[in-house]
Amino acid sequence: MKFEITPIAYIQSCYKEKFATPRQPGLVSAAKGQIQLIPPFNHPDTVEGLESCSHLWLQFVFHQCLDQGWKNKVRPPRLGGNKKMGVFATRATHRPNALGLSVVKLDSIQIEKQSVILHVSGLDLIDGTPIVDIKPYIPYSDSLTHARYDFAQLAPKELSVIFSTPAQLALNQQDNREQLSTLIRQVLAQDPRPAFHEVDEARIYGAKLDCFNVNWRYLKTDQETTIEVVAITLL
Amino acid sequence: MKFEITPIAYIQSCYKEKFATPRQPGLVSAAKGQIQLIPPFNHPDTVEGLESCSHLWLQFVFHQCLDQGWKNKVRPPRLGGNKKMGVFATRATHRPNALGLSVVKLDSIQIEKQSVILHVSGLDLIDGTPIVDIKPYIPYSDSLTHARYDFAQLAPKELSVIFSTPAQLALNQQDNREQLSTLIRQVLAQDPRPAFHEVDEARIYGAKLDCFNVNWRYLKTDQETTIEVVAITLL
Repeated sequence: MKFEITPIAYIQSCYKEKFATPRQPGLVSAAKGQIQLIPPFNHPDTVEGLESCSHLWLQFVFHQCLDQGWKNKVRPPRLGGNKKMGVFATRATHRPNALGLSVVKLDSIQIEKQSVILHVSGLDLIDGTPIVDIKPYIPYSDSLTHARYDFAQLAPKELSVIFSTPAQLALNQQDNREQLSTLIRQVLAQDPRPAFHEVDEARIYGAKLDCFNVNWRYLKTDQETTIEVVAITLL
Repeated sequence: MKFEITPIAYIQSCYKEKFATPRQPGLVSAAKGQIQLIPPFNHPDTVEGLESCSHLWLQFVFHQCLDQGWKNKVRPPRLGGNKKMGVFATRATHRPNALGLSVVKLDSIQIEKQSVILHVSGLDLIDGTPIVDIKPYIPYSDSLTHARYDFAQLAPKELSVIFSTPAQLALNQQDNREQLSTLIRQVLAQDPRPAFHEVDEARIYGAKLDCFNVNWRYLKTDQETTIEVVAITLL
């Protein structure tokens, strides 16, 4: 038995590539996205009453992983990226059906002629991800305060993020510097580096965020590892 | 663009028909189900580490609604079943992609030769529902204690349930009478009746639960409505 599903919307996201996209939703509240419903789903009726929801579930397709198939066991980043775990015990992308699940904050609903756009934040979806369903988050059934997930009960520890002088100067030239600086801080605090990479202070990492290419390096002391943003350039 | 999805498992559920199946998961903790992975997904590797989860997300197909198509607006039971709301503002079944989403408690994992069965409870899925994905519930990202859903912020008010003498006698003959009596109480306390039905004390309702046909009626006083189970018969 097979079922056919079709996108109802695509997301425009500040995350332009897989690297540095957060591993769960809600970790980067400054991350913004727009969900544009496509015909024939773009009728204002389909979202009537949606303003009563503070948060939405998005069911989506891991479209960049479709060609790669699925695996019995995967290497989740929370286990350091070098230990394997059953695919159904993780939310990894290489699943039998490449379906993702994410909860996002609903900021506003924009309805214009022939166009329904949901503005959301806290997302963890790459730009262009096809959305196959949108559902309200229902607190009394979805918020399980006593649930347990031993491998990752708490949110990952965050790193400190500082800006080099050139990066700070580049930031100062942007109209939305407050929002951009928060976005960069929150994204990098998650430490996008694969956990099995040893800290190499000479190495410069880069990722596309919003309209920018952001470069950073790791500064290590005995006590802690800090991220220094070294460059911010327009894409 | 279209995507093909395929069941990874089917659920065996105590709910044998749509009527009286709870409208959200978690409302009936005594509801039990078994999720049997089908080939080629029935390898023990696929669930390695799953025992670290107390709860699971199930993504599934509303298979009994596939022929009926979708609607811009639907009549959710929480609005009395006679007011319409946008399909994406509800979890109704008549959706563009007939995908459902449910969180269930993971009770145990049974692995035998060629067979992987997950025993779950608190479900709201009908017997035979095709499951297309299983994911861990991750408390730090999924449990949003401040989320808001104005149409149904709190769980529905429960009705009192009593057993008639013949129903109690029928119950007493069952080996699993404790579990069965809790299941019937919890299911009927949700008031399965369409909300726009006026209470008609002469009407007998029935639903298939587990291996039984359960019949009940409504008793109304000025203060409250009570459900009386009038018959429990083997299917």
